[in-house]
Amino acid sequence: MTRDVILCECYARDGLQHEARFIDTSVKADLIQRFAALGFERIEATSYSNPAVVPQFADASELLATLPRREGVWYKATCANVRAVERALADLDAGHGANEISLLVSASESHSQRNLKRTREEQWRNVAAMAERAHGRFRMVGTISVAFGCPFEGRVDEATVVDDARRFAELGVDAVTLGDTTGMAAPQAVQGLFRVLLRECPQLALVAHFHDTRGTGLVNYVAALEAGVRYFDSAFGGVGGHPDKVKYGGGHTGNVATEDLVSLFESMGVRTGLDLQQLLEVSRLCQQALGRELHSRVAASGLNPLALRP
Amino acid sequence: MTRDVILCECYARDGLQHEARFIDTSVKADLIQRFAALGFERIEATSYSNPAVVPQFADASELLATLPRREGVWYKATCANVRAVERALADLDAGHGANEISLLVSASESHSQRNLKRTREEQWRNVAAMAERAHGRFRMVGTISVAFGCPFEGRVDEATVVDDARRFAELGVDAVTLGDTTGMAAPQAVQGLFRVLLRECPQLALVAHFHDTRGTGLVNYVAALEAGVRYFDSAFGGVGGHPDKVKYGGGHTGNVATEDLVSLFESMGVRTGLDLQQLLEVSRLCQQALGRELHSRVAASGLNPLALRP
Repeated sequence: MTRDVILCECYARDGLQHEARFIDTSVKADLIQRFAALGFERIEATSYSNPAVVPQFADASELLATLPRREGVWYKATCANVRAVERALADLDAGHGANEISLLVSASESHSQRNLKRTREEQWRNVAAMAERAHGRFRMVGTISVAFGCPFEGRVDEATVVDDARRFAELGVDAVTLGDTTGMAAPQAVQGLFRVLLRECPQLALVAHFHDTRGTGLVNYVAALEAGVRYFDSAFGGVGGHPDKVKYGGGHTGNVATEDLVSLFESMGVRTGLDLQQLLEVSRLCQQALGRELHSRVAASGLNPLALRP
Repeated sequence: MTRDVILCECYARDGLQHEARFIDTSVKADLIQRFAALGFERIEATSYSNPAVVPQFADASELLATLPRREGVWYKATCANVRAVERALADLDAGHGANEISLLVSASESHSQRNLKRTREEQWRNVAAMAERAHGRFRMVGTISVAFGCPFEGRVDEATVVDDARRFAELGVDAVTLGDTTGMAAPQAVQGLFRVLLRECPQLALVAHFHDTRGTGLVNYVAALEAGVRYFDSAFGGVGGHPDKVKYGGGHTGNVATEDLVSLFESMGVRTGLDLQQLLEVSRLCQQALGRELHSRVAASGLNPLALRP
């Protein structure tokens, strides 16, 4: 299907990461296959986390083993250390598993230490070791969190983020994601930073990942689109985000709702390549899996009728 | 205070219009005075509706009588017919009352007949009679609803909206508001229509009034700002909208949350002229008055820290 943008559906990983109740593997697997059937090219499937720390992803290998390979679909798994990459490689060698992995750094020292439990330099050494091990086997995505502002340090220097992106490129990653982890981005900053990166790192696919902490997710996605970005992350129902209000900036910290992003883009004439007829049915199942009302306005109100016109 | 944009706080009228429980006059009066103290130049205070039809505004005159005149603050009342204008004039002659009134048309025939119970031409005759009676006594605002799309007819012709704005101008109104009543606007349509009106009707103040039915309110406010619009409507907590899901497009139909709009604009360096220190305290009181959690993300998450920097 012809598409102008490539969305990555983050429900199953970023969305569920801090979900207290374990979601059955079969439920996750069903939803992920529905995401693929809707037309998502990129799907965050799981994380090779330590099961003792993140029990939600204790089923990572089991889940990935159930997912049939689909032409043109990338299943992404998050990897926190070399041990995680080894697990991803073992699954890949077994003929299933993720074909895309993501490696994470924080743009601020304080956020790195609190969120990753490592200094930035320690984390860069960790990422370099992971990238070396993974190179050539997976599509690699480097993610830079708090790229547009840090809840502890405030403003983040644009040059730091550009340096981080270059460093990822030197490690052989294929794409770099800029994360607005606690919703501090403003549209000018989004355009400024992405325009610099599009110019300075033309070899990288650039991905926008905004959280809707302050309701600005769609504003910033439009700003990124105008700057030339074509890869966008979102999650059905706007799920996700860190539940610790004190440490992570508080309040609603979830992703931008896929339903709302798709409705907006399609109403702008930006083709997402997704099956709009089935979108809200999948939205309903995502809500049902968590057993509570989620945060999508479009799930409650329906797609913009003007998005459905030819 | 220096400001780049002029926000109108719509909580007390558009916000409460369909609220089932009557909010005490003293509570409304207290909130409206707090809005003025925060720095709002324009405040939707009430509606001279038929109390039998809209009991929430049965206290219109009583409420307005409690509001002290403040230099540079406009209290707006909605008027549906000449009888309502007569009531507004009687209050004004008594030394209190609204100093701004709004007159409403729908850009689509179907919406006019369902929402206003009159054909468009009948409503224009009604509006002309109101404007004639009110002229010179009030600042008059003409509002065009479903200006960016109608839930019954779909796309609305730009030329219809431009004609309506000209017609309002001929009747002597000072400002024209374009309403995105059920959240169907896309940013290009917003920019296109406002740019035409700014060029064609330079004598009019142009106001953007977007509902957040599909989460696109802030996107469209940024689009309007970029087009040159300087007047924006919002309501604390994103309250408001029509509760009839079947007839009016359904789901969440409220206003854009003032808290979220202010946080976004200030983070963009767009000065709202409002007291940011007190904003969330007033937000809390607006929520308390309705006794339920409202729809502002910023009320839950706090202002963007980057909005608070010098």
